[in-house]
This record gives sequence, C-alpha cells and structure tokens, in this order.
Amino acid sequence: MAENKIPYKIYLNEDEMPKAWYNLRADMKNKPAPLLNPGTGKPMTKEELAPVFCEELVEQELDDTTPYIDIPEEIRSFYKMYRPSPLVRAYCLEEKLQTPAKIYYKFEGNNTSGSHKLNSAIAQAYYAKKQGLKGVTTETGAGQWGTALSMACSYLDLDCKVYMVKVSYEQKPFRREVMRTYGASVVPSPSETTEVGKKILAEHPGTTGSLGCAISEAVEVATKNPGYRYVLGSVLNQVLLHQSVIGLETKIALDKYGIKPDMIIGCAGGGSNLGGLIAPFMGEKLRGEADYRIIAVEPASCPSFTRGKYAYDFCDTGMICPLAKMYTLGSSFIPSANHAGGLRFHGMSSTLSQLYADGLMEATSVEQTEVFEAAEQFARVEGILPAPESAHAIRVAINEALKCKENGEEKTIVFGLTGTGYFDLVAYQKYNDGEMSDYIPTDEEIAESLARLPRV
Amino acid sequence: MAENKIPYKIYLNEDEMPKAWYNLRADMKNKPAPLLNPGTGKPMTKEELAPVFCEELVEQELDDTTPYIDIPEEIRSFYKMYRPSPLVRAYCLEEKLQTPAKIYYKFEGNNTSGSHKLNSAIAQAYYAKKQGLKGVTTETGAGQWGTALSMACSYLDLDCKVYMVKVSYEQKPFRREVMRTYGASVVPSPSETTEVGKKILAEHPGTTGSLGCAISEAVEVATKNPGYRYVLGSVLNQVLLHQSVIGLETKIALDKYGIKPDMIIGCAGGGSNLGGLIAPFMGEKLRGEADYRIIAVEPASCPSFTRGKYAYDFCDTGMICPLAKMYTLGSSFIPSANHAGGLRFHGMSSTLSQLYADGLMEATSVEQTEVFEAAEQFARVEGILPAPESAHAIRVAINEALKCKENGEEKTIVFGLTGTGYFDLVAYQKYNDGEMSDYIPTDEEIAESLARLPRV
Repeated sequence: MAENKIPYKIYLNEDEMPKAWYNLRADMKNKPAPLLNPGTGKPMTKEELAPVFCEELVEQELDDTTPYIDIPEEIRSFYKMYRPSPLVRAYCLEEKLQTPAKIYYKFEGNNTSGSHKLNSAIAQAYYAKKQGLKGVTTETGAGQWGTALSMACSYLDLDCKVYMVKVSYEQKPFRREVMRTYGASVVPSPSETTEVGKKILAEHPGTTGSLGCAISEAVEVATKNPGYRYVLGSVLNQVLLHQSVIGLETKIALDKYGIKPDMIIGCAGGGSNLGGLIAPFMGEKLRGEADYRIIAVEPASCPSFTRGKYAYDFCDTGMICPLAKMYTLGSSFIPSANHAGGLRFHGMSSTLSQLYADGLMEATSVEQTEVFEAAEQFARVEGILPAPESAHAIRVAINEALKCKENGEEKTIVFGLTGTGYFDLVAYQKYNDGEMSDYIPTDEEIAESLARLPRV
Repeated sequence: MAENKIPYKIYLNEDEMPKAWYNLRADMKNKPAPLLNPGTGKPMTKEELAPVFCEELVEQELDDTTPYIDIPEEIRSFYKMYRPSPLVRAYCLEEKLQTPAKIYYKFEGNNTSGSHKLNSAIAQAYYAKKQGLKGVTTETGAGQWGTALSMACSYLDLDCKVYMVKVSYEQKPFRREVMRTYGASVVPSPSETTEVGKKILAEHPGTTGSLGCAISEAVEVATKNPGYRYVLGSVLNQVLLHQSVIGLETKIALDKYGIKPDMIIGCAGGGSNLGGLIAPFMGEKLRGEADYRIIAVEPASCPSFTRGKYAYDFCDTGMICPLAKMYTLGSSFIPSANHAGGLRFHGMSSTLSQLYADGLMEATSVEQTEVFEAAEQFARVEGILPAPESAHAIRVAINEALKCKENGEEKTIVFGLTGTGYFDLVAYQKYNDGEMSDYIPTDEEIAESLARLPRV
C-alpha cells in the first residue's frame, strides 16, 4: 500500500477541538416546527417544558437563532477523555473496492458506551448537575444511549434510572451489566413501576416493549419525582446541538488537509448522529458558501424519511410527550421482530425533517442483509467491527464508491461510523449462520399506524 | 479540572511511529535460556523449529544479538489502521484519588480484538503469508488472541484455525462469533480433531479444557497439515519482540514531553504485554542509562513469578512442545474455576523470567475481588471498561498512587492498559452481584504440579 500525505487517522490536537457547539437552526430559513402541547395544540412554553427538562436544556431546545453556544469547560474536559475521535481515511477499503473514490469516516466508537451518544449524555447530565438535581431518567433500546448516560452520571455523581426496552433487556444482558457497573438502575420496560407501564401491560400483556413506550415511562418518573428530569438521546434539537461536535471536528480535520467532501453520509434513526455530523456542512450549504450531497440512510424496515408522513406526532407510545412535527410512521409503528439493529424509532428529528422537506438533503433506505454484508466487508479490511446502525452508512458509502469506480470519478465520501458492534453479536451470529432475513413493511401496515396520527 | 500542558491523550504522528522492533535480549548479559528438545535435552535448532514456526519467526525466536529488527512496510501499514495507541494521562483518576502522583497509561484496547494481541498477530500472519503458507493454527483462552489472529488472517487472506478452551467457547459465544465474522474456524478444545485431544478427553472425560491443552492441539494440527504453521500469542521471544511496539511508542510519547517515569507496571500472564511495554525502558536499565522500577502484576490464583519455580517446563499440557526455562507452576497447573480473568498460563516468558531472576524487575500478585474493585473505580472516572487482565495493573497503579499520597511523593507511574472488558461481562456481573470470591492455591497444590516438572 503506497504511503500518502493524508495519514490513516487524523486526530486533532486538544487546542484544535471545538469550543462551541454549532446550532444549525440559526442558519435555517424555514425553522423546524415547534413542539406542541398535545392538550392545547399550542407551542410548548419554557414553563411547560421545565418539569420535564433541565432549564438550560429547555433554552437550548427552543433557541433557533444563536449560531454558536459555548461548550462549558467541564464538558470540554470530559470530551478530552475520549475525544477527539479520529477521522479515518479508509485506505484499506478503497483498495479492496478498487475505487478511485476517497473514503473517510468519522469513528465515534472508541469509548465504552461504544457510540457517539456520550457527546450529548455528558452535556445533559452536566446541566442537570448544575441545576442541583438528584438524577435523571431515560429510556434505551439497543443500550448505547443508556450506557452513555450511565457513564456521564457516574462521572458527575448523579442518580440514573434507565428504562430499557424489555426485548433488549433480555437479549442484551451485557449491555445491562455495563450500565450497572456504572451504577445505573436498569428497569425492563414496560414495567409495573409507572402508571403508563401498567396501562400498556394491561392492554398488551406479554409485550416486549418499544422505545416509545420506554420514553413514556421515563418521562412519567421524571415528572413525578422531585429533583429528577428526563433526558433523551436523540430526536431533540438540543441533542443535535451537542452532537454537532462530531461534524465540527470532522470539518476542522478536513480543512487542515484541504479536503472538500462531495458527499456526507450518515445513518438515521432519530437523527442524532446524522444531525451532528452534517451540521457545519449543512450550515455552509444554507449560507450558500458550499454545496454537498447529504444522504440519510435508514433501514427499509423502519423508513420514516422515505415512506413516512411529514406531520405532527407523538414521540412516545403513551402519548404523554409533546407533539413534534417530523417524518413519522406513526407512534404506534413498531419495526418487524426480525429487525436486528437499532434505528427503530418511528419518527425523525424535527430539524432534519424540515431540511429534508426543503430538499436540502436526500434519504435512502437499505435492507438488513445487505447492511450486514457491508459490515462484514468493512470489518475485514478496516479492522473495526461496526454497529449495525453504522453499517447502514457503510452500505451506502460502498455503493457510492462503486458508482465512482464505474464512472471513473474521484469523489470524496465522508461517512459517520457511529459505533462498534461488540454488543450486537447475536445479530452477527444470525447473519453468519445465514438466518437473517429482510422485511419491508407493507403500505397497509404503514397506513394503519399513520391513521392514528393525532389531529392538530 | 485545571488545564495542563500535557494533553489528556498523547498520539504520535505517523512519522513518529517506530520503524523497527526492539529486541531486548540483545542488551541482556544473561540471555534467556534456550528452548530445549524434550527428547534430546539439547537446544532446539532452526531445523527442529521449522516444522512448527515460519522460517522468519524461527530466526526472530533464536536471535538474541540483533537489537533492532525492521518492521516490514506491510506490517507498518496495518499498524496505522489501529495505531498509534494513545498514551493517556489519567487526570480524572489522579483527581479521584487526590494523589500527587502523575499517572499515565498506554491503552491498547482501541481495536476490535480489544487488546494488544493484534501487534504480534499481524506480524506472525505476515511472515506466514510471505512464506507462501496456506494458513496458521493457534489456541485461545479468553479469546483476545484468537480474535486478533482472525483479524490479521482475514486481512491477509490466510486460513485460520483456532482451538478455543472449551469453557471459554461455551461461556463466550460472542468472542467466538467475532472470530467467525473474520472468517476463522473455531474448535472447542479438547476436541476429537486431534490425537492429543482424544487422549486428553479419554483421560479426563468432561474436562472443560485449558490453554496448555489447546496449545497441544493447535501444534499437532500445524505439524500434520502441509502448508500450516503454529502461532502463539504470548510467552515466546518473537512475541515480545513484536510487542515492543507498545513500549517504543510509549517511550517516544514520554520523551516528546520530557517525562521520565519512576515506575512501569504491567499485568503478566505469559508476558507479552509486559515484555513489550517495558522493552525500551529495560534496555536503558540494562545499558546503565537510566533506572526504573518495573513491576509485574499477576493473579494470586496463578502466581508463576511469585510462587513458581525457575525451571525447564513444557509450555503445553500434551507435552509435545519444546521445553522452556521459566518461572512455572508446572504444566499441569490449572487455576481455580472461580478465576474470572485471563492471565491463567502456568508459565512465563523466558526473557522476563531471566530478568526477574537477575533482580531487574519486581513481581507482585493481587486477588481478583480487589482487581475488579479497581476496574470499576477506573471505569467510572476514566470512561474505559477495562479487561480484567488490565485491571491487575490498574490495581497496583492505584496502590502505588495512594502510597505517593501518603508520602507526599510526586512520582510518575506508567501502566499498561492492555484491553477492554466488553467480552468479560459475565465476570463483571458476578462482581456487581457480590458473588465473586478469591482463591489462593495452597502450597500443596503448587508442589503437586511442580513435582511433575520434566527432568532435564
């Protein structure tokens, strides 16, 4: 393999790391639609959000005008524990594909939570601590967010209650154990510990839970217990703000070597990684300073962008959260049981939804067997076993690199490698044993859950 | 936390990475004792070793005079995929302990094998490929070495057969699955696929295997199948040579900031990590250029340095391998079933054994509950869930840092954090549930296995 001026991994120095998050909304002409109070149908006020979220996070949630928000020094110190994350030139993958494309990926998996989720977890925990709270509650599906939050809370000595989707709680005991090692209490959801949990269990005995249902439980506990607030790992504007550190580091690293990407690819569940990765690039696009293709990749089994409706919907199954305007499959939509990876949220970040509605980004969906095929190919040449979520982006990056090969184009592709697959080996085993299948929901299934959208 | 001139993580630039391995033996006055042919009692010749190991690795195994051996460019390219590994200043741990000591750790866990083992795996696979072989065989206990070798072989398109200690094969299905994802075939040991396996099964029906037994099987398969050789992840001189990349990078990073360590601490099973980490520092000590305290940490349940005998012994249970002179508990010694982590080999690298016999390094043993206590404390403040093996070094580093606190000494401590504990959560669960216990072998137990040492 030839030596090259661009190193395999670009690490920023500490003094090059971002000192402020970038608030993409400030540069959007069409702002993301506000959260609505499901009772009144009117935009949620600070006062209404305050029982659910910490004060400073409410400010961040509602602020769509301030372009840069300082990262508090305590959070920057914590970031230095596991950041900067490397921007990796995928020389080995390029060679394997024999493509003229130049492929880079921003790898967020080098921390014990195994993903980018820690970027927002420490921020949300920090503001909770600063407000003098006792603890926070949250939900987790695959477990990356719950692990990240446990790590952040343990560091700041905050109590952490995690409602974990029951099927994951049972199938991923190791994830649960990492959270326990970090001192969190982990409850399988739906549970008997909340009113909404009891109601769901009564209506659907034997249910293995869903993210939407775990959110309802965590919100209930936060609002009923003094000194607690609820925190969420994706979807919200504040989360995209914190995750902008991914994109900012990526941009600084690329600029350092004079690299201008042609396209930026990220997987999209609730939108936290994608929104963070693309933030500064989308900012340039919005300000007319540069142009990029920006591609969201979602699973064909949970295709909110590509087959959902842009409408107000609940973020949770229990319908106790505010309404968000987003591309949604309906809050009662649950991906097929054969779906192995994450990215199973029925909706999508309001910010990304508005950008998509405005034609500023593309979206595509991929099936899981082709995703695991890409994951294995990537693992074998790049040495990192990717999370199934991240492998959605790998799949499309490889597809685009192969198009470059066909057309002889030397495009520069950047994608987000959000995390590692060390806790997803049940899914890899299925794939290795040839027992993985695909499932694409029918139009009728989607129409059925969309028929239950709230009327606003 | 105050800003400081030393960054949280020191990453070398690519052009600062070592271009040659350092062969510690070249600077030793008392050379490590040679491998002996168990039949003749005479030193193994190149010709005798050639059916077992690749030619160039035989050269490296026997070479105790050349101080630097070039790292082939192909291996350096592979290293760039996951190296340099960071040298981390443990600011958060220091603050937690309120110690004046300065603590650094070299973190080798940021690759999918989860440990330093990849450093030697790629080297051994490379020389096998260069020799035109079809494949390699090996054994694995906890699975880190097997995973590392699978990754290296998949990269170079070599066949890889792994004999995995049966108890690990059953208790760590995810480790097995990672190896399969990298295309390796994994066989639980003892197995019916070898003569030695059949014999052991006949003598000990229902045995859950041991590292020594898996070695015997892997060696048998390598020597009976044309185009195959055996590779080993620890103990051997060649492995310590390859692992010197850990110490060399550490030394370059420390020198860059003018840091002189007072002590270097590493866990010791077969000695691969410790031998690699200390290599350049021990070199300076041997040449009289500097002095360091060098501390090997082993489990109290498998205390080869601290309670073993310095004598010739078999490396394997089947007694088909050459004899090595080393601190050993006897090749029939198997650590208590309650032993959770790795570091369960009955012997120790000949190189390290000679250095220890010559009083050039210290050794200490720790019990596993105190090890997991240190692991949890470290994980909570440094954000990395450590492998139980690595946590042995953490335990002693913390102990030394607390002594510094007591004595008001600003010592600089460097320790090796060999890997992550993502596949060790059964052990963490035991610890979290308060079900972990300690076991120290009795003098009688050790005497019993030592009584079976071969007569040379």
